[in-house]
Amino acid sequence: MKHAEWIKDEFPAISRSLGFTFTPREEIQGRNRRLQEKMEATGLEGFLVVQKMDCFYLSGTAQDAALFVPRDGKPLLMVKRELERARAESPLDHIVGMKSIRELPSLVADQAGRQPRVLGLELDILPARDYLRLQSMFPNSKLVDGSGLIRDLRKIKSPFEIELMRKAGNIGKGVYQEAGKILREGMTEIEFGGLLEAHAKKLGHEGLLRVRSFNYEAYSWHVLSGSIGGIVSQSDSPMGGLGLSPAFPVGASRKVIKACEPILVDFGICYHGYQSDETRMFCIGKMPPKFVDAYKACREIHDAVLADTRPGADCESLFLKTLELAKGLGYEDSYLGPPGLQTRFVAHGIGLELNEYPFLAQGQSYPLERGMTFAVEPKIVFPGEGSVGIENTVLVTQEGCEVLTPIDMEINEV
Amino acid sequence: MKHAEWIKDEFPAISRSLGFTFTPREEIQGRNRRLQEKMEATGLEGFLVVQKMDCFYLSGTAQDAALFVPRDGKPLLMVKRELERARAESPLDHIVGMKSIRELPSLVADQAGRQPRVLGLELDILPARDYLRLQSMFPNSKLVDGSGLIRDLRKIKSPFEIELMRKAGNIGKGVYQEAGKILREGMTEIEFGGLLEAHAKKLGHEGLLRVRSFNYEAYSWHVLSGSIGGIVSQSDSPMGGLGLSPAFPVGASRKVIKACEPILVDFGICYHGYQSDETRMFCIGKMPPKFVDAYKACREIHDAVLADTRPGADCESLFLKTLELAKGLGYEDSYLGPPGLQTRFVAHGIGLELNEYPFLAQGQSYPLERGMTFAVEPKIVFPGEGSVGIENTVLVTQEGCEVLTPIDMEINEV
Repeated sequence: MKHAEWIKDEFPAISRSLGFTFTPREEIQGRNRRLQEKMEATGLEGFLVVQKMDCFYLSGTAQDAALFVPRDGKPLLMVKRELERARAESPLDHIVGMKSIRELPSLVADQAGRQPRVLGLELDILPARDYLRLQSMFPNSKLVDGSGLIRDLRKIKSPFEIELMRKAGNIGKGVYQEAGKILREGMTEIEFGGLLEAHAKKLGHEGLLRVRSFNYEAYSWHVLSGSIGGIVSQSDSPMGGLGLSPAFPVGASRKVIKACEPILVDFGICYHGYQSDETRMFCIGKMPPKFVDAYKACREIHDAVLADTRPGADCESLFLKTLELAKGLGYEDSYLGPPGLQTRFVAHGIGLELNEYPFLAQGQSYPLERGMTFAVEPKIVFPGEGSVGIENTVLVTQEGCEVLTPIDMEINEV
Repeated sequence: MKHAEWIKDEFPAISRSLGFTFTPREEIQGRNRRLQEKMEATGLEGFLVVQKMDCFYLSGTAQDAALFVPRDGKPLLMVKRELERARAESPLDHIVGMKSIRELPSLVADQAGRQPRVLGLELDILPARDYLRLQSMFPNSKLVDGSGLIRDLRKIKSPFEIELMRKAGNIGKGVYQEAGKILREGMTEIEFGGLLEAHAKKLGHEGLLRVRSFNYEAYSWHVLSGSIGGIVSQSDSPMGGLGLSPAFPVGASRKVIKACEPILVDFGICYHGYQSDETRMFCIGKMPPKFVDAYKACREIHDAVLADTRPGADCESLFLKTLELAKGLGYEDSYLGPPGLQTRFVAHGIGLELNEYPFLAQGQSYPLERGMTFAVEPKIVFPGEGSVGIENTVLVTQEGCEVLTPIDMEINEV
């Protein structure tokens, strides 16, 4: 049998029977139309989208492809691999194969009627070598950074996207229930977390978390126990843990989990590309009062952020208020990391990637909007001793917010 | 306790007790010296290394940092996060903190005596926005692509690196032994693979595989059963499988594994950053003769490549010879993928990343060298039916080669 025929005939039914949900046509059309409005407003005559998640967002497929969006008219998806599957997955009308990047100029000109005089690119992540090559391929086009337009577009989630995030949150719930069942003294951090990961995948978790950044690797979960929880590492996070080697210096280690030490489980879930991010505390036996108290402070800060979350609330103000709260509660020197290493955000936007807008952070003064989603994660770190924290993924609603990670928030003493 | 003090006092002993091996000083010195020789030969006065694995290779730490290598004199590691840990992990003599990228020009000038007139960058992966920013920060420097120099350097593995790859191969061996024990009818692909992954992590596998590329996501394992194994997806691989959703369209799916169908298990391992890559076939009960025969052909091609592997053998010729062999064995239309979708390589270099030199591939005419490592993976794909294949990671030795993944090569009928 030929591959193309099999994909045409069998793929739609098989993939749906195995749990695939495809992005509806109206959803894709609306996203492209909103991008075109932003292009109109900023003078872009075309946009060449190459980043995997931007391309997925605007086309509905994650096959290896580039998307050309003209300011007027229909987008063109140019697929390197695999064409028939892209056609089966994407509701776009114009989908063609592209064997070599050299075909780009003519494909773009055909779709737009001529070469765009101003062409938007994702310069925040497009490699310099590709940028220079595109410059020579589009000699009469001004290449400008349009990544902000797409990031801006993606910050408001549609009901379709929110439903996928709810499902991710529910998988997370199942993972934390499993954690309470399987955790026991003598397991290593990596062993415990590995079993949770296997369970998460069985429930539909896709394994990788995505981050829009060069060099950043998103570990999808951290299990940090006792003093290991007090170690800061390379990521922009209050604590990073030890990891398994100098090459993977973050997250779970081979440390054996002991009784009566705080165990922080930060577990991100990805379902159909949409992520939830959550953190809960565990302990085998009784958690020492110092950590219980610190956890209560995290809860208080978390609850305060949620109480203030509504359309119009200023993101930087929300963050600064948590600094005041932490100070009042006596954690000025341990909130969001040890002195000199404290992070400057308490929440990050989340969706297809872990660093979407909004950021509840220093220097991020803009209002929350209905349909935004973010993960709020107040954490407290004691070097040499351990760390505690809580994290939930929330949706900004018309009146306030909805928690998308409905997991019990008490300390899990097992 | 202060974080910096704790790291200085406790981190070395704790991390070693939990299995960390640090790159020896002579190893790091030799790598930098060889890079400086290449810089001398190509006219670079300095090299600003930012890519995570290049930086790890030349410094011994994967903390968030940039490395400046002057043509003469000592390299300078500039650490964003976390400085004390970088100092504990890296044997370099000059390690400083860098709060902002704005400090780069003065740090570089201090180390080199003046701004380099020709500055090497990794333009193959450096984002365009960063490139343009560096251009304005180093107005009198010519910025050139030096990524080839480092890739060239990294293609020959030292005994230290080879030993880590052997350990990765041994973890793989444990994973395939576990596979034979736990595989049973009724499991889904993702459930089976998830349990293998948990086992691999318990044995020391670091979870992520790395690829030097924009947009490429390295799934660390594939479990493909029956007709799902015949599906091509976005990656440059003979088959990709279905995956879990349009957002993760590759690898294991929710398909239930049945008796008497071929089950391809392609499982990459990462230990201390060094990878092994291997594939074996499983079947619950008897594998149908069509697949057994195709697997025998893959073995024959695999064995032929290994028989010809030695310093001086031409990489393209080795690949082309496999095409001839496949044709002679009757698999011209299914070797390395279905017609029109066949990949043009049978082996990829492997080490810290999955796409290092050498490639046994079309257009890659250069000789194998002692100390190179590659994963050779002849595979045969029948759309609508399934696929088979074998893969081993091998080292080019003085006389021939050594298989670094010493796993039984028979079909595992369980």
